[in-house]
Amino acid sequence: MWPTVSSDGVAAGEDQSLERPFGHDIDPRKLFAWAGVTASWPNRTEPGGTRGLDDYLTRDFSHNIGAEIMGRNKFGPQRGPWRDDEWRGWWGDEPPFHMPVFVLTHHKRASITLSDTTFHFVDGDPATVLAQAREAAQGMDVRLGGGVTTVRAFLDADLVDTLHVAVSPVTFGSGLRLWNSPEQLLDRFHLEVVPSPSGVAHHLFWRK
Amino acid sequence: MWPTVSSDGVAAGEDQSLERPFGHDIDPRKLFAWAGVTASWPNRTEPGGTRGLDDYLTRDFSHNIGAEIMGRNKFGPQRGPWRDDEWRGWWGDEPPFHMPVFVLTHHKRASITLSDTTFHFVDGDPATVLAQAREAAQGMDVRLGGGVTTVRAFLDADLVDTLHVAVSPVTFGSGLRLWNSPEQLLDRFHLEVVPSPSGVAHHLFWRK
Repeated sequence: MWPTVSSDGVAAGEDQSLERPFGHDIDPRKLFAWAGVTASWPNRTEPGGTRGLDDYLTRDFSHNIGAEIMGRNKFGPQRGPWRDDEWRGWWGDEPPFHMPVFVLTHHKRASITLSDTTFHFVDGDPATVLAQAREAAQGMDVRLGGGVTTVRAFLDADLVDTLHVAVSPVTFGSGLRLWNSPEQLLDRFHLEVVPSPSGVAHHLFWRK
Repeated sequence: MWPTVSSDGVAAGEDQSLERPFGHDIDPRKLFAWAGVTASWPNRTEPGGTRGLDDYLTRDFSHNIGAEIMGRNKFGPQRGPWRDDEWRGWWGDEPPFHMPVFVLTHHKRASITLSDTTFHFVDGDPATVLAQAREAAQGMDVRLGGGVTTVRAFLDADLVDTLHVAVSPVTFGSGLRLWNSPEQLLDRFHLEVVPSPSGVAHHLFWRK
């Protein structure tokens, strides 16, 4: 998940499905338009793209990252025990991670490797999973890839050092919220809000 | 050179010396204070540092860079033929480049290797030197490391794809200028000006 929420803090709908990975009310193209027009957007198929502020933040997304932790709902729309091991994520045979990925789930499943990405399915509290990911990252940083429920769990456990959230100039009204207001984090984090000409406001948090 | 100029466009004084690498009127600590307080500042000796916008731009400085081109005046205060091969740059035995560096000079000198940095001394027009650096960069980008005379020469030859200049809230009045006004570049470049809470205005240019 790209770290983007609407101006009312919503990152995804509650009714995720195979057809609408972000829920039926949320069009991810609206949320991610700011990143999609940059030169560094990983899914870019034609040359070109902007090289301004949004591009710096888009290409920084993978800078010095050695492992990712993601929630099960980012990996796929299924719930409960893994009935269908055929599901190998949204991303086809060449996932855009190129590193070990730890998928949070209460249900056992063997690791799978697709190209240079290996998905490990892990059950455990945030601190335990972070320790596993940190070891896999071999000295590089661990990225918390989302979704919003996962980010909130790690924030609640006070395991987040830095956080970049792009707040898009759209409102969704209902859905899964990262926050009611970014001010909720100010007791523990410094915050810089950097408005981009694209209309997105980049919220850059780091631990006090 | 960190890509920083004063609000009146000055990047260095005209009377560079061993004691004052930026000329006697220019205190580099003033120009580079914005980068020096970030977590990613390469010369940082203690932990900590800010992790906001300035930090993103500081750490991007080396992102995907495979070779640097620098003017002779960045390499050292000497002029004319190399009388003293003892001079091996300002940076000691472990220069912070970690890549091939092409030093522009009209005077012959053999390449020198210090740790994982090799300095090549090259004479040629900007296009020729860029072709050499591009080959050495092995598919990564070439950074134009400064000083200001070198950057201007490559801009004049229309060989610059992107340019990041941090404009500091200080004025120097006289000295070597990158520009009279950033508007001089708008015929060929897009420009985003992103003010940082530190007081620096990041000027991000990319080719139209």
